[in-house]
Amino acid sequence: MLAGDRVALAKLMSRAENETQDLAAILARLAPHGGRSYAIGITGPPGAGKSTLVDRVVGRLRAAGGKIGVVAVDPSSPFSGGAVLGDRIRMQTHCLDPEVFIRSVSTRGRRGGLARATRQIARLLDAFGKDTILIETVGVGQTELDIMEVAQTVVVVLVPEAGDTIQVMKAGLLEIAHVFVVNKADRDGALRMKAELEQMLQLRPPAAWTVPVLLTEAHRDRGIDELVAAIAAHRGHVTTDGSAQRAAAEHRVREFLDVLGATLAGRIEARIGGAYAALVARVREGTQDPYAAALEVLGDPDGLRRLVDGSG
Amino acid sequence: MLAGDRVALAKLMSRAENETQDLAAILARLAPHGGRSYAIGITGPPGAGKSTLVDRVVGRLRAAGGKIGVVAVDPSSPFSGGAVLGDRIRMQTHCLDPEVFIRSVSTRGRRGGLARATRQIARLLDAFGKDTILIETVGVGQTELDIMEVAQTVVVVLVPEAGDTIQVMKAGLLEIAHVFVVNKADRDGALRMKAELEQMLQLRPPAAWTVPVLLTEAHRDRGIDELVAAIAAHRGHVTTDGSAQRAAAEHRVREFLDVLGATLAGRIEARIGGAYAALVARVREGTQDPYAAALEVLGDPDGLRRLVDGSG
Repeated sequence: MLAGDRVALAKLMSRAENETQDLAAILARLAPHGGRSYAIGITGPPGAGKSTLVDRVVGRLRAAGGKIGVVAVDPSSPFSGGAVLGDRIRMQTHCLDPEVFIRSVSTRGRRGGLARATRQIARLLDAFGKDTILIETVGVGQTELDIMEVAQTVVVVLVPEAGDTIQVMKAGLLEIAHVFVVNKADRDGALRMKAELEQMLQLRPPAAWTVPVLLTEAHRDRGIDELVAAIAAHRGHVTTDGSAQRAAAEHRVREFLDVLGATLAGRIEARIGGAYAALVARVREGTQDPYAAALEVLGDPDGLRRLVDGSG
Repeated sequence: MLAGDRVALAKLMSRAENETQDLAAILARLAPHGGRSYAIGITGPPGAGKSTLVDRVVGRLRAAGGKIGVVAVDPSSPFSGGAVLGDRIRMQTHCLDPEVFIRSVSTRGRRGGLARATRQIARLLDAFGKDTILIETVGVGQTELDIMEVAQTVVVVLVPEAGDTIQVMKAGLLEIAHVFVVNKADRDGALRMKAELEQMLQLRPPAAWTVPVLLTEAHRDRGIDELVAAIAAHRGHVTTDGSAQRAAAEHRVREFLDVLGATLAGRIEARIGGAYAALVARVREGTQDPYAAALEVLGDPDGLRRLVDGSG
């Protein structure tokens, strides 16, 4: 993978997606080769045109000579056998370009761990030598907000029809945006939405970074240069004032605790059926309460040690 | 709380929200008093009018003599000091009715654990004696889909402007809906959206339950009786064919593993700064890779045991 083998990279990404237990060791070995890339998050409600916008931004960054990775967190439907049509189309623009690597992360059948898998895939792209990593999430929810913690610059994409700005607040988007984009700006209400967002942003306490609200029409390639410039300006800002470095330090500690917790949870899940078969059966049939059962295991130091101890 | 003290109930809910470690013991003690309520999930994109719809459904269920609990998972903004305006207004309709208990669960500053807190609050409402628990999530994302696993009947609310049905697929909503509602059905495109959803549902393999697509205008109180009837029909269906019971069994095992994993993660987080102070400092300053650090702890059985062992 370090020699530039894209197939090897893709295989490692599948391990991240499948939460394979040996990935931590691989990421630890890759660590000296990473740490040079910058991550940009693009989020917003379904249908806002994020995929087209990402496509356009990738085009600009490629034209400037950048090496680009894209992680698209893509809730997929079992009917289509994976990514839905729109994503397949999007990928074709850059799929023949060897300096662009695009990966869809499926959310199908997943329970938690999505932010973790995304972070690990971003780390793999970083170690692979990408300068810029774009992380696109479909949806507006808590997990999507968590995923955006990986990104140093967060772009929130809205469309005039996305509802009023109260909805933006309800979705928690006002707090995470470094750049707002009103896409499909040729539609009714775009200017009003821009004005409302700017008003709402002015209600916040003064900050060193002023969040811009940009108008784009991604399908007509309008407003993209301004967006790329705004991302670069924010990147310059957080790199200069040290906040990017402070955030990265906290993220490293969080990542450490997260992988530790997830590995132990995996060990417990793999061993519980053997070590506590009767208890699990009682929980399943409803004769034992799940919380009482958890307390029973937690109050049994010998059993607990057998569950978490890698040598057990 | 079991004597009907609403303040005691609210205090226990705060413990669930704050992930207080002693809640598992409390839930275990309450278990014999619960297990009689039915949980209905209401989800969809921000701005779809879910709050008004929930309000109307609560009104119908109250008129039929039900005891109702509502859990509103509400991403809140720091500017408003908690719930945004819309939620405050909504709650006033039923806030004087002692048989309706409404709780907002804030997502502010939260990292994961949202589905767990919601499930625990639903359990508290169950033990408190509520017949029906409505769980409303704002947003369309992975966590919101996870939360809906708690519900036995899931209602997905859309509006004509919510985009085309491809977006519904991308958000994973087609797989979780037992009832679709196109709200604000007086707007353009409502009938087309209903037809598209019905077409898409017909592409699925035949199933014993046919997902209805209903038209509502919650603010005018139209279509609510049909929605309540559809929910009752689905409830009857899953209770009769045993699928509700099978799903509940799997959820109990998942809940058991989840609380076990979360409790251990909490222990590790509380103790890691003492037990591995130098290691955490190196991760924070970037001289130690987070994954290498996690492997170091996982490969140290004695240290690991001290971290997870309640007696340590």
